[in-house]
Amino acid sequence: MAGRLELIASIYNGIPKDAQITRIEFEGPEIAIYVKNPSFLTNNTEVIRKIAKEIKKRIVVKADRSVRKNEKEALEIIKNIVPPEAQIADVKFDEDLGEVLIKAKKPGLVIGKGGLIQQKIFMETFWKPEIVREPPIKSRTVESVLTHMYNETEYRSKILKTFGERIHRELLFKDRYVRVTALGAFQEVGRSAVLVETKESRVLLDTGVNPSASFGERMYPKLDIDQLRLEDLDAVVITHAHLDHCGMVPFLFKYGYEGPVYTTSPTRDVMALMQLDLLDVAEKEGRPLPYSAKEVRKELLHTITLDYEEVTDIAPDIRLTFYNAGHIIGSGMAHLHIGDGMHNIVYTGDFKYARTRLLDKAVNEFPKVDTIIMETTYGKQKQTNREESEKELVDIINNTVNKGGKVLIPVLAVGRGQEMMLVINNAIKEKLIPEVPVYVTGLFDEVTAIHTAYPEWLSKEVRDSILYRDENPFTAPNFKRIEGYREDIAHGEPSIILATSGMLNGGPAVEFFKEMASDARNSLVFVSYQAEGTLGRKIRDGAREVQIINRDGRVENITIQMEIKSVEGFSGHSDQTQLLKFLEHMSPKPRNILLNHGEASAISEFRDLLNRNRKRLGLWNTNVYAPTILDSLRVA
Amino acid sequence: MAGRLELIASIYNGIPKDAQITRIEFEGPEIAIYVKNPSFLTNNTEVIRKIAKEIKKRIVVKADRSVRKNEKEALEIIKNIVPPEAQIADVKFDEDLGEVLIKAKKPGLVIGKGGLIQQKIFMETFWKPEIVREPPIKSRTVESVLTHMYNETEYRSKILKTFGERIHRELLFKDRYVRVTALGAFQEVGRSAVLVETKESRVLLDTGVNPSASFGERMYPKLDIDQLRLEDLDAVVITHAHLDHCGMVPFLFKYGYEGPVYTTSPTRDVMALMQLDLLDVAEKEGRPLPYSAKEVRKELLHTITLDYEEVTDIAPDIRLTFYNAGHIIGSGMAHLHIGDGMHNIVYTGDFKYARTRLLDKAVNEFPKVDTIIMETTYGKQKQTNREESEKELVDIINNTVNKGGKVLIPVLAVGRGQEMMLVINNAIKEKLIPEVPVYVTGLFDEVTAIHTAYPEWLSKEVRDSILYRDENPFTAPNFKRIEGYREDIAHGEPSIILATSGMLNGGPAVEFFKEMASDARNSLVFVSYQAEGTLGRKIRDGAREVQIINRDGRVENITIQMEIKSVEGFSGHSDQTQLLKFLEHMSPKPRNILLNHGEASAISEFRDLLNRNRKRLGLWNTNVYAPTILDSLRVA
Repeated sequence: MAGRLELIASIYNGIPKDAQITRIEFEGPEIAIYVKNPSFLTNNTEVIRKIAKEIKKRIVVKADRSVRKNEKEALEIIKNIVPPEAQIADVKFDEDLGEVLIKAKKPGLVIGKGGLIQQKIFMETFWKPEIVREPPIKSRTVESVLTHMYNETEYRSKILKTFGERIHRELLFKDRYVRVTALGAFQEVGRSAVLVETKESRVLLDTGVNPSASFGERMYPKLDIDQLRLEDLDAVVITHAHLDHCGMVPFLFKYGYEGPVYTTSPTRDVMALMQLDLLDVAEKEGRPLPYSAKEVRKELLHTITLDYEEVTDIAPDIRLTFYNAGHIIGSGMAHLHIGDGMHNIVYTGDFKYARTRLLDKAVNEFPKVDTIIMETTYGKQKQTNREESEKELVDIINNTVNKGGKVLIPVLAVGRGQEMMLVINNAIKEKLIPEVPVYVTGLFDEVTAIHTAYPEWLSKEVRDSILYRDENPFTAPNFKRIEGYREDIAHGEPSIILATSGMLNGGPAVEFFKEMASDARNSLVFVSYQAEGTLGRKIRDGAREVQIINRDGRVENITIQMEIKSVEGFSGHSDQTQLLKFLEHMSPKPRNILLNHGEASAISEFRDLLNRNRKRLGLWNTNVYAPTILDSLRVA
Repeated sequence: MAGRLELIASIYNGIPKDAQITRIEFEGPEIAIYVKNPSFLTNNTEVIRKIAKEIKKRIVVKADRSVRKNEKEALEIIKNIVPPEAQIADVKFDEDLGEVLIKAKKPGLVIGKGGLIQQKIFMETFWKPEIVREPPIKSRTVESVLTHMYNETEYRSKILKTFGERIHRELLFKDRYVRVTALGAFQEVGRSAVLVETKESRVLLDTGVNPSASFGERMYPKLDIDQLRLEDLDAVVITHAHLDHCGMVPFLFKYGYEGPVYTTSPTRDVMALMQLDLLDVAEKEGRPLPYSAKEVRKELLHTITLDYEEVTDIAPDIRLTFYNAGHIIGSGMAHLHIGDGMHNIVYTGDFKYARTRLLDKAVNEFPKVDTIIMETTYGKQKQTNREESEKELVDIINNTVNKGGKVLIPVLAVGRGQEMMLVINNAIKEKLIPEVPVYVTGLFDEVTAIHTAYPEWLSKEVRDSILYRDENPFTAPNFKRIEGYREDIAHGEPSIILATSGMLNGGPAVEFFKEMASDARNSLVFVSYQAEGTLGRKIRDGAREVQIINRDGRVENITIQMEIKSVEGFSGHSDQTQLLKFLEHMSPKPRNILLNHGEASAISEFRDLLNRNRKRLGLWNTNVYAPTILDSLRVA
C-alpha cells in the first residue's frame, strides 16, 4: 500500500492545475482535496474517478475556505434550490470540514434524481452537503448525537486528520502474519471482543459487556493483557448496538484509547442510547459505573460511520467492509481484507440467516474469505417456523381480546420490539386481529424513533413502503405512544401493550404486569429469551406467586391469574438450521471457521454437526476451531 | 504467596534477638539474612530450617560486614583449615555479597565431610564460601566467566537485589490464567522460544537462533510482538547451551531486557563460549552481528545458576525447577509450578530418554504436570541401537588402522565430541581397538575442558570414575590435545582425529579432510546429523568430487578416495521409540501435550502415533496440540 507522500504525489500529478489545489488532507479514511476552483472538478468528474481507482482510495473534493459563500448567503441559496416538499428541518455548517448538514423530512428531495440537487448545492455554495433524515417520530438521540458532533467540529476535524495520517502511514515490515485472539464471548455468550493483529496493525472487533455479571472482572472482555495496548490500537469495529457487543467502548476511551470507532450510523445512535441507559440503570441500582457520559460523548466524536459494502482503509494493511447481518438495525458483519489480499476475515457478530419483517437476510457472499469467526448462540437449538409463530401470536391476541382482556408483550428495546410492531401492524392490516389500540412505551419507543430516521437500513419491504409509498408502519394509526405506565390502560378496554424491559427486570412492562396479573382475562406473552435470574424467567418457568419490590421499597406479593404464553421463533439469531444453511450457501468457502458467541455445549454440539456434514456443506478442507478466551490463533 | 513485608516480618519474628540481624536482603531468589552474630545461628540451624520451610523460601545466613575478618586474615585462615591435597588454585572475595570464592582442584576436600570444613571456614572468617572446581584441563571460558563476575560484584549485588524485590512483589490480581505462546521452533527446528504468561508474570523459555538462517527476521524467534515487552519480562530460562536454544539471549539485553537468566552452571559457561563463537564466525563471514561481546558479558552478570531439582521462585506466582534432560552437559527440562499449584508446565527442551556414556537418562517423574511442551525432532525416525553403533565404529577404526590409515571423525563442539571420546576411551580400555593416538582439536576441546570443571553433571559412571576413582576419561593418556590442524598428523601414522566442525563447514576438521581425502586407506566417519547445504551433507550423500575454498580464497577441487562412513545412533535426541517410552513411563500424566521442535512432518506423524496409542500410553484424556508459531494456548 502506498504511503502518504506517494498518495499526495499521485493526486497532484493526476489533477490539472486549473483545479487550484490548496490542501490535501487525510480525513479519517477519506482523502479530501481542497480546491479554489471546484467547478472545474465537478465538470471533470472523470479525473477524480480515475485517480481514486488508481490509488484505491476514497477521494472527496471540497472547496477552499476562501471561495465558500458565507453561511447566511449559503443558507439562502439552499432554501432556493431545495423544493419545499423536502421540508428542511435544520441546516448546520461545519467550517472545519467545509460541510453543510441539511436535515429534512424527505432527504431524497434534497439529494435529487441522480444526486443533481445535492451537486447544485455544492456548485452554488461551495459547501459539501451532508443530508440526513428528520425522523417522523422525533428521536432525542439522533438529535443530540448530531448537535454534539456539530458543536465539536474543530475537535472532530483535528482527530480525523490524526486518524487519516495513522491509517496512511508507511508499511514498515516485511514479516507478515495474522493472529486472532479471543478476548470475550468464546465458549460463552456476552462481552464480545476479538483482537486481530498483524505485524503492522491491531484491530479490536466489538467490546461488549457481560450482561450476566454486573461488576468486576467478569463484566469485561480481557482488555488488560500485554497483547492489547490501547494506545497502539488502530481501530475499534462495532458490529451492532447490543450492549454485549458495544457496551464497553467508552471504557476504552476512559483508559487511553484515542483512535476511531467504525460502525454504521444506526448502530452509532442506538449504541450511545444503550450505553447511557446502562449508566442510568447502574446508577439507580447503586452499582459502580464503568465509565461516564463524558466517554460516551468522546466515543461519538471518534466514530466514523460506514454504509454496508463500503470498502474503507482502517490501517495501512487492513480494509474494512460491513455486510448486512440481519440481526438488528444497522447490524453488520465485519469483513477485513488484510495485506492486499493475503488474508480475509469475516467476523459475523450476531446474524440472522433468514428474512424477518424488519430486516433482510444476512449476506453470505463475500469477495474473499479465508477465516470466518461465527456466532453459535443457537448451535444446539432449532426454532419454530416463523409463520407458525406469527399465527400463534395472532391466536393469543384474538382469544384474549374476545374474553375482554388485554395482551402484555414485554419486548427488548432493540430489535424484537420493532419486529412485534411490524407483525401486529400486518395482522391488523390483514384483518387477522381486531383493530384494538396498541400501546408502545419505554426505552424501546426511543429506539423505534431511531428506526424511523434510518429506513434505508430496514428490510426491502419496509424500506419501499416508507420511501416509495409514504406508508410508515411505525407511525400507523393503531400505535399509541405513551410515556411510561398508565393505570387507565392497565385497567381499560382490550388492547395490546408493547413495553420494555423484555425480561421484566424493570421499565413500564413490570408496572403493567403488576396491575394486570390478577385478571384471568389478560395474557402475558414472552417473545424473546428470558435470562436466568430475571422475573420473566421465573414466570415463564411456571411461578404463579412472585415478589416484586415496589417503588417505595416494599416487597409486594403478586398472584398471577393472567394467562402466560411464550412464542418462540422471533429470534434475531440464526437457529441451528440457519447456521448450517449459512455455511452451506456461503461463497467462497472459508479455510478456517472459529466458533464463538455460544455456550460451551452449543459450540461443541454445532462443531460435531459441522464435522459430520462437511461433505454436504462443502467444507471438506476447512479447519473448525472452538477457541477459549485468551487463545490466539495464527491464521496466516 | 506472601509479599516482601510479610516475609521480612516472619523472619524477624522467627529469629531470636541474639542473632543480631542487621539487614534482610532479597538477593535474586534467595533471602539473605545479614547478622552480627552468625555463630548463634550456626549453632541453631533448626531455627533457619523452620522459617525457610514455613515461608517456602531459600534463606542464607551471611555475616554483617563489620564482623567479617579482613581479606588477608581470612585468606590465612582458609589456607590453614583446608588440607593441602585440595590444591587451592585461587581465592576471590566478594565484599558486596559477603562471599569468598575458593577454586580448588579437589573441591570436595574444601567442602569436607557433611560440609564441615566449609562451615568451619564461615565460622572462623565470617565469609560465606562458594567452592568451585579448578578443571584438570584448563578452560579459558570457566576462568574468564568467574573473573568477570568477581570483577563486577557491586553491579551483581545491586541487580540481584532488584531481581529479588521483583520476584517477591505483592500479587495484585485475582484473575488467574496461564497462556503459552509459540515464538520459535514450532513446526520447525531452530530458534526455540516459548512465552509463558500469567496475569501476574511473564517467563521466556529459551531464546535460540535459527541455524538455517544466518541473518534477517527468520534468524530470530518472534520476539518483537506486542505480547512480549522485554521490560516487563520476569525471567528468561535457558534449557541448554546449543545455539538454537540460547543463541539470542544477548540480543534480549541489547534491546532492553534487564532481568535474570536462569540456567545451570555448565550451561552458563558453554552458552557464553558458543555465543562468542557465533560472533566470531559471523565476523569472519562478513555477516551483520546480532549483538556484541558486551551483551554476552551482561548476560553473564544477569545469570543465576541452579542445580537440578533445586526449586526456585522466579516470579511472585512461578517456581522453576530444572530436571536432567540427558541431552548435553547441564541440559535441563524446565518445570514451572504456577499459582501455588494451579498449573504445572514441563518444557523439555531437547532430551534423551536413554543412557549415553556421557549423561544419565532424562528424568520423567515430576511432582505435578498439567501441560508438557515436548521436543519432537525424531518424531518420525527410529535410531540404530547404541551397542550396534559402537560396534560399527569399532569395526571401522580397526579396518582403517589395519590398512595403515587414519580415522577422521568430525564432531559437533558440544555433546557428540565428548561422547566420542568416552566411546573411544572405553574401546581402548577394553582392547577392542589398538592403542593408537587420538587427536582432539578445535572448539570442541575447549568445551571438553568445561566438562572437566563439572563432573557432577555427567553420567553416574563418569562422575564416579572422576570423583571417587580419580580416573578422568577426558585426560586419559591416549588423548593428544593439539592446536588447530597439523600436517604431520594428517600424513603420519595410524590415528584417530576428533575435530570440529561436525558438518565440515569450517574448523580444523575441513583441513584434515582436505589432506586426508586422497588416501584410500583413510576413513571419514560421520556420527551426527549433517544439515542441508553443508559439505558434510554433500559427501554423506555420495559426492566424490567436491570444491573447497582455500584460506587464500582460491577454489580447490578435492577428489575423495578415503572411505566414507556414517554411524547413526549417537544422537543426543530421543528417537521416536524413546519419545513414546518417555510418555508411557511419565508420571504423572499430563492433561495437555504441546509438540514442538520438529519439522511439520515429524510432528504430524508423531501426533498420529500418539493418538493411535493413547490407551497403551495411558493418555486417554490428554489433549495433543501441534501449535504454529504465534499461536497462544490458554492452558489454565
